[in-house]
Amino acid sequence: MAITVVGSVAYDTIETPAGKRERCLGGAATYFSLAASYFTDVRVIAVVGEDFGRRQEAVFEGRKIDTRGIEHTAGKSFFWDGSYLENLNEAKTHNTELNVFASFEPKIPEAYRDSEFLFLANIDPVLQRRVRDAMPDVKLVAGDTMNYWIKDHRPALLEVLKGLDILLINDTETRMLAGNSNLMQAARGVMELGPKTLVVKHGEYGATLFHGATAKSERSETLRAPAMLLEEVVDPTGAGDSFAGGFFGYIASQPELTPAVFRRAMYYGSVMGSFTCERFGTERLQQLSREEIDARFNLLIRLTHLD
Amino acid sequence: MAITVVGSVAYDTIETPAGKRERCLGGAATYFSLAASYFTDVRVIAVVGEDFGRRQEAVFEGRKIDTRGIEHTAGKSFFWDGSYLENLNEAKTHNTELNVFASFEPKIPEAYRDSEFLFLANIDPVLQRRVRDAMPDVKLVAGDTMNYWIKDHRPALLEVLKGLDILLINDTETRMLAGNSNLMQAARGVMELGPKTLVVKHGEYGATLFHGATAKSERSETLRAPAMLLEEVVDPTGAGDSFAGGFFGYIASQPELTPAVFRRAMYYGSVMGSFTCERFGTERLQQLSREEIDARFNLLIRLTHLD
Repeated sequence: MAITVVGSVAYDTIETPAGKRERCLGGAATYFSLAASYFTDVRVIAVVGEDFGRRQEAVFEGRKIDTRGIEHTAGKSFFWDGSYLENLNEAKTHNTELNVFASFEPKIPEAYRDSEFLFLANIDPVLQRRVRDAMPDVKLVAGDTMNYWIKDHRPALLEVLKGLDILLINDTETRMLAGNSNLMQAARGVMELGPKTLVVKHGEYGATLFHGATAKSERSETLRAPAMLLEEVVDPTGAGDSFAGGFFGYIASQPELTPAVFRRAMYYGSVMGSFTCERFGTERLQQLSREEIDARFNLLIRLTHLD
Repeated sequence: MAITVVGSVAYDTIETPAGKRERCLGGAATYFSLAASYFTDVRVIAVVGEDFGRRQEAVFEGRKIDTRGIEHTAGKSFFWDGSYLENLNEAKTHNTELNVFASFEPKIPEAYRDSEFLFLANIDPVLQRRVRDAMPDVKLVAGDTMNYWIKDHRPALLEVLKGLDILLINDTETRMLAGNSNLMQAARGVMELGPKTLVVKHGEYGATLFHGATAKSERSETLRAPAMLLEEVVDPTGAGDSFAGGFFGYIASQPELTPAVFRRAMYYGSVMGSFTCERFGTERLQQLSREEIDARFNLLIRLTHLD
């Protein structure tokens, strides 16, 4: 069933120990869409400038992603310049230009209205809430956020959290949002703010699912999925958004939303995040096959499972 | 089958967000022995001062650990004073007094000679090698080390590594030892130095087993065991040594050393590390039951396994 995603479509200049790429296609909504497109139909809401042309459009079309919600406007697309030279786990931002994103007013195409799944990628919580309110009939809403919104836009973010079924954030964001340094306690604190399910991403160590586990005794409803061990991490940009795309895409592809589906989704999230790291930008995500994805899913199962 | 362990038996003064304890029983050999004692017979080689009395002796006796190799000498026992006030993942050392440990000359009791398993806890590699050479007939040798020996005592450490079957160290130590920032490549580099099996400990994220996987294609011989999610980490001191004790203790208890045994051992290691964190010092490790251990083993399986 179709997912609508709202978020950034951008250009990234990225430097890692493996090399440098200038202005490659990026943005949270791009990584999310590509990853989710291997599981289900995806529809994007975003804004781009005049520098977004046929070549970029083709990346989405190549994966049959609906781009009618990508608004083209005068000016330049969102641009990010960052590097991972000292630490592959943490980007150093050299420059961020919001450009056309500064005045983004998400518009939902009529054709997107019957989407049953909604993903609110990391953007201003005021916009996240507007999109969520405009699509009241969706079956499941997931979202992401970041330290900046947690610290400086807390009231708006809290409104978004109330309307979320699933929140996907990292360790630091979880602890910051709950004001608690113990991960389990912090996870409970975050779930008390709205989301019934929380996915905490641990970068190279995988991710933990807290699924409806608001009481102490429900510890068994947690799942830790490992991250793949990679021969070379070429570029970690977008790995978290790709995780979200694999996770939510798999969920949207299933007939029933059982705890078992959420658990398997964690492994699919980890699979998609690992592929992204193997090449610069979205290169790897553009040319996968479902066979490759399932083969890696099985490798990842073997990486943690006994017998 | 019996394990002989050589390492430190010490007093620790520990401060964490949960409180402070003065001069509690600690040391790598202590944590290792207690953890391993739930699986097999353990024999300790260490040195203590006049401050080590009946109460400390009783901790070992309570777990039927053979202490005939603990040498009592004039002076004070090894003492460490540290805190984890800002970060539970990393100790801040305030004071280290080697005391009687400074002139430690490990002596192996005759009764220990038929041990089939040997664990070289984190001490001067010159001493590790001496013990290893004095017990040439053991079936399996495992060991630990730390950044200090890797950086400043490399030649002596390299000699130890040649005689090790299993090395257990953390991420930073693995990368430092191999001079490679990619974990997979670093693991291969470390295994080329001797150990056929490497266990890389990731603290709160669990640990990864590299078992005979020296070739690229043998990726499936790796296993990632998660760490337990704990309601409260009271004191992480000794968690790594307890992991080693659970891991090696389980292996020593098995009739055959198959890959499946090594994989299960990773989960037992994680179980024992998690118990240690629940109380100060060795408090929790002194009073476990095999039932509690297996119950947690099953919880940990459930934490990663699908279906």
